[in-house]
Amino acid sequence: MSLKGIHINADLGEDYGRYTIADLDEMMPYLTACNVACGFHAGDPSTIDATLLKAKRHSLQIGAHPSYPDLQGFGRRSMSIPTDELTSILRYQICALAGMAKSIGIQLSHVKPHGALYNDAARDIHVARAVCNAIRSLSDEIPLYVPPGSVIFELATEEEIPIMLEAFLDRTYEDDLSLTPRSHTGSVINDPSKAHQQASSIYQDNKVITTTGKEKSMSADTFCIHGDNPAALEILKAIHA
Amino acid sequence: MSLKGIHINADLGEDYGRYTIADLDEMMPYLTACNVACGFHAGDPSTIDATLLKAKRHSLQIGAHPSYPDLQGFGRRSMSIPTDELTSILRYQICALAGMAKSIGIQLSHVKPHGALYNDAARDIHVARAVCNAIRSLSDEIPLYVPPGSVIFELATEEEIPIMLEAFLDRTYEDDLSLTPRSHTGSVINDPSKAHQQASSIYQDNKVITTTGKEKSMSADTFCIHGDNPAALEILKAIHA
Amino acid sequence: MSLKGIHINADLGEDYGRYTIADLDEMMPYLTACNVACGFHAGDPSTIDATLLKAKRHSLQIGAHPSYPDLQGFGRRSMSIPTDELTSILRYQICALAGMAKSIGIQLSHVKPHGALYNDAARDIHVARAVCNAIRSLSDEIPLYVPPGSVIFELATEEEIPIMLEAFLDRTYEDDLSLTPRSHTGSVINDPSKAHQQASSIYQDNKVITTTGKEKSMSADTFCIHGDNPAALEILKAIHA
Amino acid sequence: MSLKGIHINADLGEDYGRYTIADLDEMMPYLTACNVACGFHAGDPSTIDATLLKAKRHSLQIGAHPSYPDLQGFGRRSMSIPTDELTSILRYQICALAGMAKSIGIQLSHVKPHGALYNDAARDIHVARAVCNAIRSLSDEIPLYVPPGSVIFELATEEEIPIMLEAFLDRTYEDDLSLTPRSHTGSVINDPSKAHQQASSIYQDNKVITTTGKEKSMSADTFCIHGDNPAALEILKAIHA
Repeated sequence: MSLKGIHINADLGEDYGRYTIADLDEMMPYLTACNVACGFHAGDPSTIDATLLKAKRHSLQIGAHPSYPDLQGFGRRSMSIPTDELTSILRYQICALAGMAKSIGIQLSHVKPHGALYNDAARDIHVARAVCNAIRSLSDEIPLYVPPGSVIFELATEEEIPIMLEAFLDRTYEDDLSLTPRSHTGSVINDPSKAHQQASSIYQDNKVITTTGKEKSMSADTFCIHGDNPAALEILKAIHA
Repeated sequence: MSLKGIHINADLGEDYGRYTIADLDEMMPYLTACNVACGFHAGDPSTIDATLLKAKRHSLQIGAHPSYPDLQGFGRRSMSIPTDELTSILRYQICALAGMAKSIGIQLSHVKPHGALYNDAARDIHVARAVCNAIRSLSDEIPLYVPPGSVIFELATEEEIPIMLEAFLDRTYEDDLSLTPRSHTGSVINDPSKAHQQASSIYQDNKVITTTGKEKSMSADTFCIHGDNPAALEILKAIHA
Repeated sequence: MSLKGIHINADLGEDYGRYTIADLDEMMPYLTACNVACGFHAGDPSTIDATLLKAKRHSLQIGAHPSYPDLQGFGRRSMSIPTDELTSILRYQICALAGMAKSIGIQLSHVKPHGALYNDAARDIHVARAVCNAIRSLSDEIPLYVPPGSVIFELATEEEIPIMLEAFLDRTYEDDLSLTPRSHTGSVINDPSKAHQQASSIYQDNKVITTTGKEKSMSADTFCIHGDNPAALEILKAIHA
Repeated sequence: MSLKGIHINADLGEDYGRYTIADLDEMMPYLTACNVACGFHAGDPSTIDATLLKAKRHSLQIGAHPSYPDLQGFGRRSMSIPTDELTSILRYQICALAGMAKSIGIQLSHVKPHGALYNDAARDIHVARAVCNAIRSLSDEIPLYVPPGSVIFELATEEEIPIMLEAFLDRTYEDDLSLTPRSHTGSVINDPSKAHQQASSIYQDNKVITTTGKEKSMSADTFCIHGDNPAALEILKAIHA
């Protein structure tokens, strides 16, 4: 059954120079929003310009997807960066993307930290603070995607930064509402019907069944799908069926 | 004699990480405008934020100083980059700087290409076009600093991009109004009275004496001083005496 | 008809971080030698280690494939770098690769400049000199792959640097023995029988038919195949049939 | 009183492109060994070549000073890198430096991890293992500089990797023999007589007085001085007086 009106986001623009990541063209019609890499984990300037045009053609909401400065590690390695310095690093990336988007008539719709930065901000107050400081320095209106129950969710709420709660279509949840680490068997959901079931449960009933079988309260404003999940397209079709 | 009302610019924010370039603090009161490195030849995000605050404190006009992507070469090495790709590279840098500036209440006052990009744009139509395309895609109002008689001067004029003609306080000129290459003896002016004389001649009489002793017509809207010229401060004092 | 004993090389190890280039596994049995990216246009350290092990398993000769420092441009953009500085840049890359290879029992078999560096060294004496200086500073015995009739061929010959003349299996030739630029239609040979014909002509008769239909003298010690040519595997099979 | 025969090391070659760090020329006569930056936190290839020549002229022992890949952070930010990947990253840097040194007749004398890598290896077994694996893959004979009582000291000892215990001339010690963090007042020793006293105590009596006033057993084979300590030269003169 179709989950009418569900808000789905995916990472986009993660090519770099001659290098390309999986082609997401077929997924585009099923997406509501995209998170565009800002050049620090992926996405050289030409890729950004091309991605913005493509996202605009598909009428997607367009957000900034800033990262630790780590191309070699694709932004998936934690880095210990002082809060102020990290704030500047994020301001730089968001401003580059927002300006390039604005020049083709697109208003930035949101900010979503990438990879290790997203995970670190969910549990480390210093990282969360850097993200919140960066956003707040740029706008009162651009929402931040945050995982429910996280440190950054609490900080952003406290600081009255607009947020959108994010759940994942293709990842299982632990009892504390953290994502099951990718290293664990079964942490990635490849079965479209299971993905539909989880999305439906969160979207319609504000509940999620964790890996221990417990039912936990959880709501989400947007649902992420990973473009590099080979089942991504099938999952999206199941949800929009 | 003081050259009242003369518009003087200098490059700023060229530190990177732990690395610092010559301290320009003493020069600040004599400057009208600064060109802030955008991270591609110098200027990490923290440096940019610190530089913007400092320039604001000194009430300087603040421009973007984009470069070829070449930190190791400090943007002083020509690179053969396709026009479209170079346009995106410049858009990215200008947007990053403009956004960070705007967030602390500063409107970008101009764009000045850096180093090899500045020189290449002065004589290579493809590079000039990339610079003009980048600027035009972002604003109709931000002026571009260009050398008189250059390829980019002609292209910008033709495309009705606002420009400011730039002369140099501490460099000598050839008969074709190009700068004498740094490799030539005497190409850098260290004598404050000579610098004053050249500035005065261009500023008041729209003339410059070239290295061959010829008098050539030349006018300028802004005058650049290089912070790494040991005589910079003395030259500025002579001009403002 | 099989070209018995023909020496074939291909570029290897051009992944970077999470990014992968076309998989060359099926080509391995047909190759004699590989050119391993050294980290400056592609090839992070983990990729290098993995590539060395794979090449060793396939008993390939292993050469260094140094580049201009330009990951974003995949080493395909010319850069104006002073000769001495470029020499150091090449020494660094070759030493990194040679040392890593040696530690798993592999002696470096050759050096082949990559992309824009290869092309520039073929026609610009300053670039050719940087390459020759780098090699000579490291070894008297490691041969350099050079295109016939090029500036670097002449310089290396003059300086008694051991060389191997290189021809291309999948690219056509101009009358001056330069490769037809990729931008020209028909410059890439996709037809296995045509590739076989050209290889056979050069390998057995020391002649090549240029794009104008002229027959020119040309000999080669090694033949390059591009892994990103979709016809690469078919061409290799035709040559080894 | 002169500490005859004391072995003193300092970091060298930390310039990058146009950027220079404090000039250590005057310190050279007082040093026994230097640790040369390998390009990942500092030290472009030209800087490495120039540094090797200078160190050779001063007859210094020359070691590799590899780092996390983090130019912007000068290698002072911890990064979470999987052990195998970090091993490759270190192999790459050490091989580049060792090969460049060998080509001018210098045998690598030691390896000393830089900055955050040094600190992390002292307390994190995964980082220590990456360092040990890298060294062991390259040589059985090159000693590793390690802090006394550290995790990497224990691992290297267990794996029979040759080590040299390192103490610091200009830093105070905590009761667990860790360095007092730089953020604490008094953690850096600027008083030459105090530095002499601590060096003399460790060097001659195998004891150190910690910040709590306790006397602890501690021995060292080499003593590090930081070139960016303004008192460095005075300290060296005091020790060699």
